[in-house]
Formats: sequence, C-alpha cells, structure tokens
Amino acid sequence: MPEDFVVTPWEVKGQIDYDRLVTQFGTERVNPELLERIRRIAGELHPMLRRGIFYSHRDLDQILDEHEKGNGFALYTGRGPSSGIHIGHMLPWFFTKWLQDRFGATLYFQITDDEKFLFKDFDDLDQATKVGYDNILDIIAMGFDAKRTRILIDTEYIHHLYPIAIEAAKRITFSTTQAVFGFTNSNNIGEVFYTSVQAAPAFLPSVLAKKPVRVLIPCGIDQDPHFRIARDVAPKLGFPKPALIHNKLLPSLQGPTGKMSASIPESSIFTKDSLKAAKRKIMDAFTGGRATVEEQRRLGANPYICSIFAFYNYVFEPYDGHLSEVERTCKSGERLCGDCKLELWGKVEAFLKKHHEAREKAKDRIEDFLLRD
Amino acid sequence: MPEDFVVTPWEVKGQIDYDRLVTQFGTERVNPELLERIRRIAGELHPMLRRGIFYSHRDLDQILDEHEKGNGFALYTGRGPSSGIHIGHMLPWFFTKWLQDRFGATLYFQITDDEKFLFKDFDDLDQATKVGYDNILDIIAMGFDAKRTRILIDTEYIHHLYPIAIEAAKRITFSTTQAVFGFTNSNNIGEVFYTSVQAAPAFLPSVLAKKPVRVLIPCGIDQDPHFRIARDVAPKLGFPKPALIHNKLLPSLQGPTGKMSASIPESSIFTKDSLKAAKRKIMDAFTGGRATVEEQRRLGANPYICSIFAFYNYVFEPYDGHLSEVERTCKSGERLCGDCKLELWGKVEAFLKKHHEAREKAKDRIEDFLLRD
Repeated sequence: MPEDFVVTPWEVKGQIDYDRLVTQFGTERVNPELLERIRRIAGELHPMLRRGIFYSHRDLDQILDEHEKGNGFALYTGRGPSSGIHIGHMLPWFFTKWLQDRFGATLYFQITDDEKFLFKDFDDLDQATKVGYDNILDIIAMGFDAKRTRILIDTEYIHHLYPIAIEAAKRITFSTTQAVFGFTNSNNIGEVFYTSVQAAPAFLPSVLAKKPVRVLIPCGIDQDPHFRIARDVAPKLGFPKPALIHNKLLPSLQGPTGKMSASIPESSIFTKDSLKAAKRKIMDAFTGGRATVEEQRRLGANPYICSIFAFYNYVFEPYDGHLSEVERTCKSGERLCGDCKLELWGKVEAFLKKHHEAREKAKDRIEDFLLRD
Repeated sequence: MPEDFVVTPWEVKGQIDYDRLVTQFGTERVNPELLERIRRIAGELHPMLRRGIFYSHRDLDQILDEHEKGNGFALYTGRGPSSGIHIGHMLPWFFTKWLQDRFGATLYFQITDDEKFLFKDFDDLDQATKVGYDNILDIIAMGFDAKRTRILIDTEYIHHLYPIAIEAAKRITFSTTQAVFGFTNSNNIGEVFYTSVQAAPAFLPSVLAKKPVRVLIPCGIDQDPHFRIARDVAPKLGFPKPALIHNKLLPSLQGPTGKMSASIPESSIFTKDSLKAAKRKIMDAFTGGRATVEEQRRLGANPYICSIFAFYNYVFEPYDGHLSEVERTCKSGERLCGDCKLELWGKVEAFLKKHHEAREKAKDRIEDFLLRD
C-alpha cells in the first residue's frame, strides 16, 4: 500500500486513488459495455452505476450470465455493528436494494458482532451484539423485501457459519493473512481467524440449497481483501467464486481527507441524528467554496473537493440533469454554498424523516428478517 | 523441547522424560502430602494416583479447598474423534469416572471434531463429526453418570462455545501460539484459532451457572500447552483458572518408543477389537523378556521396559499386592512372558466383553448425555 493512502477492511486513511486500487487489488473496472449490459437486463442503471460510484468488480459478467440463464444468484453484504450508522455505511445498502428489486435475488446480510469485538471496537461482546440489533433497524428501514432478505448475526448464527468457516480456514495460512491484511505476530488469533467467518456467507446459499449458487457481494472497495481470500479458497471447497461489485467510499462532511467515523459525529449524517443536528452538520460542512461571496461569484467554486456535492452525487440527487446543473452553477459561481447546502438539506431532511419513521416501524419486524435455525 | 523426545498436543515421539516435562511445562508434582489429602477426602486413592500415573498437576490443591468448602467443582476432559479408541485414550476416562463418583462433580466432555478436521486427521468435517458420535459410545460405555455428564460436540455446540472462544481469542496473540505450540506462518488460521475453542469448556460451567465455577481437567500431559494458555487468559475474562491433573501416556504394545496410533492397530488394544484380534496383540506384544526361557529363568526379565507390565500397571491390575507380585516374579525369572501375557489377556478379555456390551447399549442413550441448546 503506498504511503499516501491506506485502504484495508479496518483502516481507511488519506486521499484514496481509486484507479490505483483497481490495479493493486487486481479487480476489473465496470466498463461501458458492462454498464450497457446491466441496463439492458435491469431496464435501467442505478445512479451509483451511472456515476462510477460502483466502479470496480470481480466476475460481475458471470453473475449476469447466470441470471440470463435463469439460474438466479444470491446477494450478500454485511455490516459490523456501529454505534451510529451513517450515510457512508449505507451506500451498498441503497445499491443492494436496487439489485434485489431488479433481479429478484435473495439477500444474505451478515452482522459481524464477533469482528467488531475482536478488532476492539467493543470491549464487550454482548454490547456488540446489542448494537448489531439496533443497526438491523436501519437495514429493515431501507425497505428490503422481507421474503427475500435473511439477516444473520454472527454469534447467533455461528452454528451454521462455523462448519463453513473452518472449511475455509483449513485452506488459509497465517502467511496469507500477513500478505493480504498486513497482520503481524501480535494480532490476536480471533482476528487471524475472522476472515473465514466473513467468507462463510459467500458459500452459505450453496450449502442451504445443496447445489452451487452464485453470489454477488456489493461492498466498499475496502472489504475486497476478505473476498480475494474467499475467492481463492472457493474452488477448493467446491463452491463458485463469489463475484463482487465495489463502491468508492463517501467522503466525510469535513472534507476529502477527513475520516468518517461513528466517533466523529460531524463527519457524516447518521440515521439517528435529530433533524436539528443533521441540518447543523450540513450547514457546517466542508465545501469547495471561496473565501468570500464576491470571490465565489467571480471565480466559481470547486465541486470536486466539496463534501456537499459528494452527498448530492453519491446519494441525494437521483436526476443526472439536475446534478449537472448543480455542478455547472457551482463552477460558474451562480450557486453559493449556503443556498446549495439548504437545497441538499431539503433532500436529507426528507430522507431522514422517512427513515426515522421506517426505523420505528422496523422494531416489530426484526424476526421477519432474522435467519435463525 | 529436547531433541530426544517431543510432546505437543499433536505429536508425541521418542522416550518421554516425565520429570523433565514437569520442569519444562512448569507444573507441580502430585506429592505425598497431596495424595494423603485426596485419600482423606475421597476415602481411597485411585490406582493411577498411587502409582504415579496421574503424576503432575496445576492448582489441584485449590480444587480440594473448593470441595471442602462445599462449593463443588466441575470436571472437563475431551477427545478428538479417532477412528479407533484405544486404552491409551481412555486413561483419563477411567480416572475421570472415579473423580465423578467420588466427588459428585458434573463432567463436561468435549468432542473436538473441528480440531481433527483442521489438523488434517480427516479430509471431511462430516466424517470427523460422525466418528465423534461413534467415540461417544465408548465414553458412555465407561459408565459415567448420565445425570452429571454433558458431552458436547464442537461443531454442534459451537453456538455456546464460540462467544467464549472469541473472548479468549482476543487475549491470545499469534506469537503466543508460536511460543507454546511451535506454530509457524504456514499453519492454517483454523489451527491458529483452535486453542480458544479448546479453552471454552474450561469456562463454560461458569457461564452456564452465571457465577465462578472451578474446573478440574484430567488429561494427558501432552494437552497441557492448551490449558497453560487458557489459564493465562482466565483472569482477564473474570473466570477462575482451570486446574489440571496430568497423566503419563500409556506405552505402545510395540515397546517404549513405539507410537500408539489408530493407524497402527498392533500398537494398542482398541475398544472395537475382536477378542481374537486383541488376544493376538497381547500375545505378540513387546516385553522385557530374555531371548530364551533358560536365560530368563536364570537372569530374570525387565518389567520396566515391558509393555505387558505397563498394561497391568496403568489399567488392568487394580491390586497393588498382585502388581508387586507380578513385578517380583518377572524380575526373579519365576514368571515367563507367555504365562504373564495369558494372565493379562484374561483381564483384558473381561474388560473388552463388558465394554462391547456396554457400547452396544450406549447406542440408545446418546441423547441422555449430549449437551444441546
């Protein structure tokens, strides 16, 4: 990993060069031909595809082959319990919901309470599990189809995951985890083992169906190292290699090199933010604006370093026409940051109000989504 | 580990110097004062205690304190699934049954199908589990009290073990497994993690009782490294350190440096041996006898290198008086190997007949012993 930025499943820092990651990780770009093929099959392209936010993949073409043959495929994504779920966490969720709707795929959603405990985000395993349950409310609030969504909590579904995990673990050496994750001798043995637990749901649909089922994993590019390992072991276990589609990471509201984290409330919009707090964050966010109104009118602003423009682009402005208009008027100086923030806030506010309500209703629906015995 | 012998949980070779192991492992000898205390409390001493077969311990005195305070303690031992259970495997079982009877303790018996799969004894996890079920028949046939015996199969009880295992794993580094087990970077990550799964039942009684419960682990001295780690992490998890009592390993019927293994049928008596096959093994066993009868009558034989004498001593001759007589007449030349073998065979035959019958009856009793949800 070059010194200027770091992207691992547990650490993202610096300004990420997404082109370089494609080379380093050895993934493929989502190119125009592939996009055209998705559009043809799905009937439309999700904005995150059109805008290159889901920009990299592994074997996505094979998933489409499988779909066209009528064999179907499963979706798998996950979340480590976090005391606050923010918009950045949700990028793969928005996109996965679209995939579920358009392709009719069953989604396996892993809650990695064990991971978050082992990697020291929580001192207390029970607390990690409890927070996982709280995060499930946000997942259900996304509107996933209860009939085709199976949420599994690692420590509560381990009975089914462990036999698959040890099949994988038997084929993964400590050396591999050093090379792929940068582990050292001072990593704890739970951390060392963990990647095999994250691999397990990639094979679970095949185990449950007792026949090979292709799996597509939409996830942040930072999670790719886990699945590189899972793909290596898949043929040795007699399972198809999981395919992936990777998103770029949503920048922090504090600017392009800021870290987005539950421990930095100002870094993003969190699903449990009050409307007042969320509005304040938007209004205080880092932009590409100039020092003075006069200067901005004269020279224009820079949307490409602006966290507000990123929020429009990644999530809150589905219409490309209007997004272009925001971009153009920003650069020309016609648009001032205060107005632009207020406009974004209108969209964020609508989202939050709807999400808060859906989250409340989700409390009665957890059992409809949980995969138990 | 000195070059002349090796003792790890997965490899035992060479002629073991048990005195040196006490020093190397840092355990304590079961000394005469401790034996006297056990005799006072239990009302008798098991032959394996009197004869120094269970010869080393950690904190056994504290277990006796606990018992005398009326707090009780739990027993924990285990078995990796093996295509054949032999008398050597059963040493801790005989002794554990005595402890259960004399102290009224609940026994947790772990079947480590995951271990045997990860460490490559089985290519197929299902096969390891299936063999584990077969081994359970031998355990039940020992006559353990169904009301106070809980057999748990790792892959089937993992739901309860995994949360405890990751608590332990979080406090164990890869370095520790290098130092304790001699692991290298080419060990698989399941092997690396596994010791935390073997630690879990040492803490399970406390978890189930929701209060600290002392645990005594009778086991072969080769298993001590696992529990050295478990003892190190115990206080960090708020559990009492497990206590141990270690046995010397039964020599092979092929002589003191022979390896006893399910893959070498002649090396021991297996519970599923036919009477005919077992008798042949006894009659063909390595002894301390002389080249000719004449020489043996004149010079006497050597019981201390004799596998037949070891079988008397370790398991099949409960009466010290008669054991001394065997020893004396062996050394004096009054006793010849053929007669001595036939006498032992009488005892082994009686044991096998009873065990075969009990094993058959055990088939209907598995569920009475299994710890499930």
